[in-house]
Amino acid sequence: MSEADEAVRPRARDVGLRLGTMDPGTLNAITDVAGVRVGHTTLISGSGPLRPGHGPVRTGVTVILPHSGNLFREKVPGAVHVINGFGKCMGQEQIEELGQIEGPIALTGTMNVGRVTDALISYGIRESPEIGVTTSTINPVVGECSDATLNDMHGRHVREEHVLAAIDGAQGGVVAEGAVGAGTGMSAFGFKGGIGTASRITVPERGGWTVGVLVLANFGRKEQLVIDGVPVGRLLSAELDPQPERGSIMFIVATDAPLLDRGLKRLARRCAHGLARTGSTSGHGSGDYVIAFSTAEAVRIPHEPEQLTLRHEVVADTGRAMDPLFQATVEATEEAIMNALFRATTMVGRDDNVREALPLELVIPMLHEHGRITD
Amino acid sequence: MSEADEAVRPRARDVGLRLGTMDPGTLNAITDVAGVRVGHTTLISGSGPLRPGHGPVRTGVTVILPHSGNLFREKVPGAVHVINGFGKCMGQEQIEELGQIEGPIALTGTMNVGRVTDALISYGIRESPEIGVTTSTINPVVGECSDATLNDMHGRHVREEHVLAAIDGAQGGVVAEGAVGAGTGMSAFGFKGGIGTASRITVPERGGWTVGVLVLANFGRKEQLVIDGVPVGRLLSAELDPQPERGSIMFIVATDAPLLDRGLKRLARRCAHGLARTGSTSGHGSGDYVIAFSTAEAVRIPHEPEQLTLRHEVVADTGRAMDPLFQATVEATEEAIMNALFRATTMVGRDDNVREALPLELVIPMLHEHGRITD
Amino acid sequence: MSEADEAVRPRARDVGLRLGTMDPGTLNAITDVAGVRVGHTTLISGSGPLRPGHGPVRTGVTVILPHSGNLFREKVPGAVHVINGFGKCMGQEQIEELGQIEGPIALTGTMNVGRVTDALISYGIRESPEIGVTTSTINPVVGECSDATLNDMHGRHVREEHVLAAIDGAQGGVVAEGAVGAGTGMSAFGFKGGIGTASRITVPERGGWTVGVLVLANFGRKEQLVIDGVPVGRLLSAELDPQPERGSIMFIVATDAPLLDRGLKRLARRCAHGLARTGSTSGHGSGDYVIAFSTAEAVRIPHEPEQLTLRHEVVADTGRAMDPLFQATVEATEEAIMNALFRATTMVGRDDNVREALPLELVIPMLHEHGRITD
Amino acid sequence: MSEADEAVRPRARDVGLRLGTMDPGTLNAITDVAGVRVGHTTLISGSGPLRPGHGPVRTGVTVILPHSGNLFREKVPGAVHVINGFGKCMGQEQIEELGQIEGPIALTGTMNVGRVTDALISYGIRESPEIGVTTSTINPVVGECSDATLNDMHGRHVREEHVLAAIDGAQGGVVAEGAVGAGTGMSAFGFKGGIGTASRITVPERGGWTVGVLVLANFGRKEQLVIDGVPVGRLLSAELDPQPERGSIMFIVATDAPLLDRGLKRLARRCAHGLARTGSTSGHGSGDYVIAFSTAEAVRIPHEPEQLTLRHEVVADTGRAMDPLFQATVEATEEAIMNALFRATTMVGRDDNVREALPLELVIPMLHEHGRITD
Repeated sequence: MSEADEAVRPRARDVGLRLGTMDPGTLNAITDVAGVRVGHTTLISGSGPLRPGHGPVRTGVTVILPHSGNLFREKVPGAVHVINGFGKCMGQEQIEELGQIEGPIALTGTMNVGRVTDALISYGIRESPEIGVTTSTINPVVGECSDATLNDMHGRHVREEHVLAAIDGAQGGVVAEGAVGAGTGMSAFGFKGGIGTASRITVPERGGWTVGVLVLANFGRKEQLVIDGVPVGRLLSAELDPQPERGSIMFIVATDAPLLDRGLKRLARRCAHGLARTGSTSGHGSGDYVIAFSTAEAVRIPHEPEQLTLRHEVVADTGRAMDPLFQATVEATEEAIMNALFRATTMVGRDDNVREALPLELVIPMLHEHGRITD
Repeated sequence: MSEADEAVRPRARDVGLRLGTMDPGTLNAITDVAGVRVGHTTLISGSGPLRPGHGPVRTGVTVILPHSGNLFREKVPGAVHVINGFGKCMGQEQIEELGQIEGPIALTGTMNVGRVTDALISYGIRESPEIGVTTSTINPVVGECSDATLNDMHGRHVREEHVLAAIDGAQGGVVAEGAVGAGTGMSAFGFKGGIGTASRITVPERGGWTVGVLVLANFGRKEQLVIDGVPVGRLLSAELDPQPERGSIMFIVATDAPLLDRGLKRLARRCAHGLARTGSTSGHGSGDYVIAFSTAEAVRIPHEPEQLTLRHEVVADTGRAMDPLFQATVEATEEAIMNALFRATTMVGRDDNVREALPLELVIPMLHEHGRITD
Repeated sequence: MSEADEAVRPRARDVGLRLGTMDPGTLNAITDVAGVRVGHTTLISGSGPLRPGHGPVRTGVTVILPHSGNLFREKVPGAVHVINGFGKCMGQEQIEELGQIEGPIALTGTMNVGRVTDALISYGIRESPEIGVTTSTINPVVGECSDATLNDMHGRHVREEHVLAAIDGAQGGVVAEGAVGAGTGMSAFGFKGGIGTASRITVPERGGWTVGVLVLANFGRKEQLVIDGVPVGRLLSAELDPQPERGSIMFIVATDAPLLDRGLKRLARRCAHGLARTGSTSGHGSGDYVIAFSTAEAVRIPHEPEQLTLRHEVVADTGRAMDPLFQATVEATEEAIMNALFRATTMVGRDDNVREALPLELVIPMLHEHGRITD
Repeated sequence: MSEADEAVRPRARDVGLRLGTMDPGTLNAITDVAGVRVGHTTLISGSGPLRPGHGPVRTGVTVILPHSGNLFREKVPGAVHVINGFGKCMGQEQIEELGQIEGPIALTGTMNVGRVTDALISYGIRESPEIGVTTSTINPVVGECSDATLNDMHGRHVREEHVLAAIDGAQGGVVAEGAVGAGTGMSAFGFKGGIGTASRITVPERGGWTVGVLVLANFGRKEQLVIDGVPVGRLLSAELDPQPERGSIMFIVATDAPLLDRGLKRLARRCAHGLARTGSTSGHGSGDYVIAFSTAEAVRIPHEPEQLTLRHEVVADTGRAMDPLFQATVEATEEAIMNALFRATTMVGRDDNVREALPLELVIPMLHEHGRITD
């Protein structure tokens, strides 16, 4: 995979797909939520037979930072939702208890989860040396999917320097998608999967808020793939894949709507709806986890605030306010998954296992034929 | 609405739709799960302006009985899952704690929930007079959706005799769908909604088990409706409906696969995927609740068993065993909702409010055009 | 039982017990939380053998109103927590979803739960006729314990007029305790149980907030009873009671601390600690449910607010702010249970079953002897 | 601390305390559950001022192995329960989803959690090299408490070799308690805390089952300490500690009763009751997590079983069967915490911070005086 190759592949919207009815943000990415930054470290080395513990390496790490200040000292409201819990995530119970996220969120290959957790602690200490000395400890948040098909998982090749590089290099703007960062070794619907992102904006009279979703897509069998309602997977393959669904998907939902934990959890639960639109049934072996946060200043949470109370301005629990945010989450989720598939390039990994990129040359005509691309 | 009219409208499969890839059971209904019985009492009277507490009446009750024995003395494993909890259901915490269902499950209009609960207690006492005298009390299980658009809710017109009639008249075989029982006053996607059902069977080498789903469909805005991936709602209406989503949907999942509470909850969570396929985003005001149970003898639970332990044979938590059951749940859910829409007939209710039946004469050609019906 | 008799029995604090270290409010009752009102309807009639459906009657209903305005139009934040879910409560899922309570909370005997639910709907309609006509439906909240030992449960003797009388008669000030309202037929630790209440106040520099707890105590075996750490139950009875624990306990937690749902749930979870101090192990057959709410104006929630957002001032999640509230909840819970036992008078019920009042003439000397009462 | 010193301090029962009414197992330890093994690695080095990242070191790791076979290939049913979620635990969501534990459970100091997670993956690969190559990944399970007061947390001194040494050295029989393993740097009620364990056995006619509990005790303020109902903390210190509660407690519950996940979760929830008996109110900053498992052959779960179903024999959900198990859990929890306090020896740590051992010379007379130790 060269970056040139990758640049060639379009995003779903570039080929004329219009998933849902709401408008995306400027970048159609999680970074449309002001202040959110994303960083990747991509690790690709070696080829040929698997030598457990050594290679080939097809893995990486992706980090999402809710704002550019000190996240420990200025926390954001957060929530988690588990659609199917066959996953080894870190940090979720404390988010559930306190409704807060206090550091970068990291995504990686399953077996790296311990090392990435440890690296997030290192980062926390670096930025806030008072942690564990004069104040409480930090809650590292890590999600994962299995890159077993392409990668030497035993090697756990993501090290502290890779995590810190992803964090230090994180930026707003365009987000690299497909086989990058944590997405390097991932597969979706039997094709190459990985990182994808999208966003939606509610109309001004409904808040004018932005919802951005970033996914690490690593799930689904070929026959299941549905693109904008068209059963592309079945059309592509006559025979059904006898394999059980093994993969997983991690969702990160960011919004500038001022939501606290309960409201964020309500958004998070709508990722299941976006996921279902792509054909998934959330297989037994799938770890489908959502982490959601709000960047709004009106709900920011200082570490150890001086006062006993905090003043917040919070989205009311009404259909008028919440329904557009729900729809935004569903639509951005569906499109983020599509972008992961559209942008990911073919990858050869361990044991020369190949994950082909989604064959856009076959798929785009199908979408035309079914009236989904109309130009 | 005459029964003759209703009989005219086809089910989704009758017009050639093939939702998903698995085979339905003989009846394509929850009653394909052996022993499951369904009963309805439909209440329609009066017309014209709403006189709160008096009429017009467009409501009813639907009951689902897991087996034909004494349910209190021979309980079935059960689970609940809440997709969006804007609902007033009865009995869910005890199901969560004990993983058991010990009576008929009733569905009705929202404000009837107290009276139907009381009627289920009457039924329990009638069948098992020891309840509350020499043994513990009974856990009535009631789900509801709001029939406010068509019905006088203040009147709470479902009384004990209606519930007992539905139970005593419950039977296996073909299930009446659409504007019957609890579905009498319900709306879905801006059209007439109500009761729908469908089923799927796993292949013999994956257990040959049946999953049946029954829904009380009362949710969604017209523009959201998707039929087998085709955005029928948008095609039917140029302008978007500015109303928030107000309705709800109740799902009953029955299976003869020997699952205990945790396995049943895993199935129950897949109703969200089937629901999402129909276009729903589970609006703020929606009460989307799933109740699941297993009829398998191998997991039956006697009341106050003599021994300290019970012997069970339970589906293993493997992709091989569970994935087909998940897919069956998703597909049956989607088709049950479609059957509710296809079968429901136009209803005029309070204040002469009208809920038109889904205009099949427009919809079927659309499905042909998009290649979904290929006869 | 005459009211004169009842008046004779002291509360726990009256005999010199000092449970915990915090100060109670003026009344040492849930009504120390400003605006909270409590109402009871007590039903006692008949005697002798049980005639199922007819009597004897030893039951009732207790209602708690968070404020004296229209609760539907001005909702309060609320939360629920289930310690052991063998109970048939109403309204909990919607509290979980929306974090709101929008009407009176009712407690009653188990089999009355349907009728009391229906009566709360009647009350909602009476106060807010727009419910179910021009706006959404109302979420009735009902908790229950079984009064089977003393009462004819089949008769479900609590009717709409009894519930409305309790609501209309609800008031602040001193709360009647023991065998009143929902507590009429209840038993605790083998003695007469019922309604009890207590409160605690945090010191001004920790907010000066009040936490009030009201319990419906109907749980425990005699041997388990612990009073302020003294194993009174074992001291009272040489032989151990071979009966399993059958009862339940409902907890209502009120506070004027401005807490939203998540904070209230954290308080609610501390009722388990207060319960445990009295010797309970939350038996299999026990329905141990907590419902918590905040009366603070700063977190009040209007029905269908005009703006998309609400401004709240909320207690921060810090030990400094929350720990005193947790301790207050634990201490008030323990004392509320003690007050239920101390105040409840001997009751003869169905089949001449007798629940003796806690023998204070034996218990108080024991507490002296163990240094718990020192003057 | 020398082992000689430690040997001198008695366990709670050795001084005559009888917590609860049930009988303990032979060892009064989690290892009374046949097959359960415990291993510790204790790390103590350096003294004087904290040099972050370097020392002094007062930390360690404790591992609990449910059986002595290959845990990945032969999993045990498991459950988790969170009393207060201010903690950074690993592996809990997958236990929740699948109801299984498939490796050793590790406890450690908070900031070691990433490294211990990684070490458990190393162990998994060592024992079952197919993990992540030809089969699925492994779910490492790690709990933690903060040893900040005595230990250099930044150094994260627990490395892979320490974890593997604890696992490889794990054994049945007497369990070292107090300031060992993960307990090395822990504090409880202002005194030295750490590891404690206890067990209870149900009578033969209630199954004759064993429940063993092991705690990592690191919570509570001095004034809160209650021993067998006696407010020892208040008696020991006139003045109240103004510090918020910062610590945490991890509970491991093992039983040979054949329970699946739901039954185990019911047991796990009773740890709150045992905890509350010691005076805790589960402070805001406390991570109070329970992990429970069953060792019974009748509920063992093979990895990728050949059949679609498994045969289990499971404890029935009746008071007769479950109540003694609940009581056993409560009693063993209380006594395990007491054993942690009784057995832990004074420790001087970072910055010459001192955690004194519980002054038994003062405490034992108090217990005599209050009639808790009678001979």
